[in-house]
Amino acid sequence: MFITFEGVEGCGKSTQSKRLAKRLGQHGFDCLWTREPGGTRIGREIRKIILNPTNKKMSAVTELALYFSDRAQHLKEVIQPALDKKHIVVCDRFTDSTIAYQGYGRGIPLQHIRTMDRLMTGSFRPKLTILLDLDAEEGLRRAWRRNRSSAKHQSEARFDKETLAFHQRVRTGYLQLARRRRERYLVVPAKGTKNSVQEAIWSQITKSCLLQLK
Amino acid sequence: MFITFEGVEGCGKSTQSKRLAKRLGQHGFDCLWTREPGGTRIGREIRKIILNPTNKKMSAVTELALYFSDRAQHLKEVIQPALDKKHIVVCDRFTDSTIAYQGYGRGIPLQHIRTMDRLMTGSFRPKLTILLDLDAEEGLRRAWRRNRSSAKHQSEARFDKETLAFHQRVRTGYLQLARRRRERYLVVPAKGTKNSVQEAIWSQITKSCLLQLK
Repeated sequence: MFITFEGVEGCGKSTQSKRLAKRLGQHGFDCLWTREPGGTRIGREIRKIILNPTNKKMSAVTELALYFSDRAQHLKEVIQPALDKKHIVVCDRFTDSTIAYQGYGRGIPLQHIRTMDRLMTGSFRPKLTILLDLDAEEGLRRAWRRNRSSAKHQSEARFDKETLAFHQRVRTGYLQLARRRRERYLVVPAKGTKNSVQEAIWSQITKSCLLQLK
Repeated sequence: MFITFEGVEGCGKSTQSKRLAKRLGQHGFDCLWTREPGGTRIGREIRKIILNPTNKKMSAVTELALYFSDRAQHLKEVIQPALDKKHIVVCDRFTDSTIAYQGYGRGIPLQHIRTMDRLMTGSFRPKLTILLDLDAEEGLRRAWRRNRSSAKHQSEARFDKETLAFHQRVRTGYLQLARRRRERYLVVPAKGTKNSVQEAIWSQITKSCLLQLK
């Protein structure tokens, strides 16, 4: 089973996806946590280029191709082998991020992204996507706070420097995806505390019978 | 006018493309020499990933997308602006390298590469392509000799570690491209000395009236 986490900057994807993977492990599942970009050695080199805030001149299609090069490597080297072993894979961001950011955010036609996705991943899709929905302004505030306190985050802040309008388009994109792909989307409000959001995710997953808990 | 140099490893593209650019400059043309991958700041970071011989696990489509991300950036940031100023651009490798290496060499369907090219560059084509044609075995021997004498070249030797059969497929690919695109291809045998190859290129270019020399 392949589970992805999506949402705007600062919505808590990393924290919540890690917590879910841990909890699934405690319930006896073989579970792998991973993320994009940067889920492989090659991907971590690509991540540095994509998120480096000094790469201001990067064109939208360059960015698009870099995300898909990271994803194709990740799928082949990490995700598919784990799924073949019947493990659960929990991934912080996947193709829907590209649709939301490069499609809705940057304005690349969604049809181009779908074509690229077909060539690069065979249109590979998660079984379940958890959208941590948060107001873009609140998310950016959290992201900026985080970046001020960490050099590591500062070195990956290229998207945090985009305008509020950009991040609002990204959020709109996510909500539209969730409406169109109801069968695999769980939308969870991300405004509460880490613990309350974690419980909301867990309760929705267990209620929806998407996982037969051991 | 956009002129590209193509050919297998060790055929002398860098040397000959630089010499041509210099000679065009001496004839009064505004001429820019550039190369792929790595014709921009972002591209140089991508180049390091693509050519790093320790990145052995790189999947064929990851490689493909990395080349196109480099190319899209290069076209937007360097090539197109120079052409807009009516400069001649001489480029060491362009899209035909991707068709030869990732298509004929790696076996990615040519149709996929053309689709990607359309999305990433709008199927941008050179006006003139000079194929320095060389036996793949002789080219590899030259490349290995070069790599032994330079740490810089060793750090970019991922393709030089491919099999002879791979490089033979690349050469076959180039020759097929040249046959199909006669209107823009000049095929120049690359076996002679640097000076004799340079003269052969110059004489073919001037004879073909592709450039009205000042």
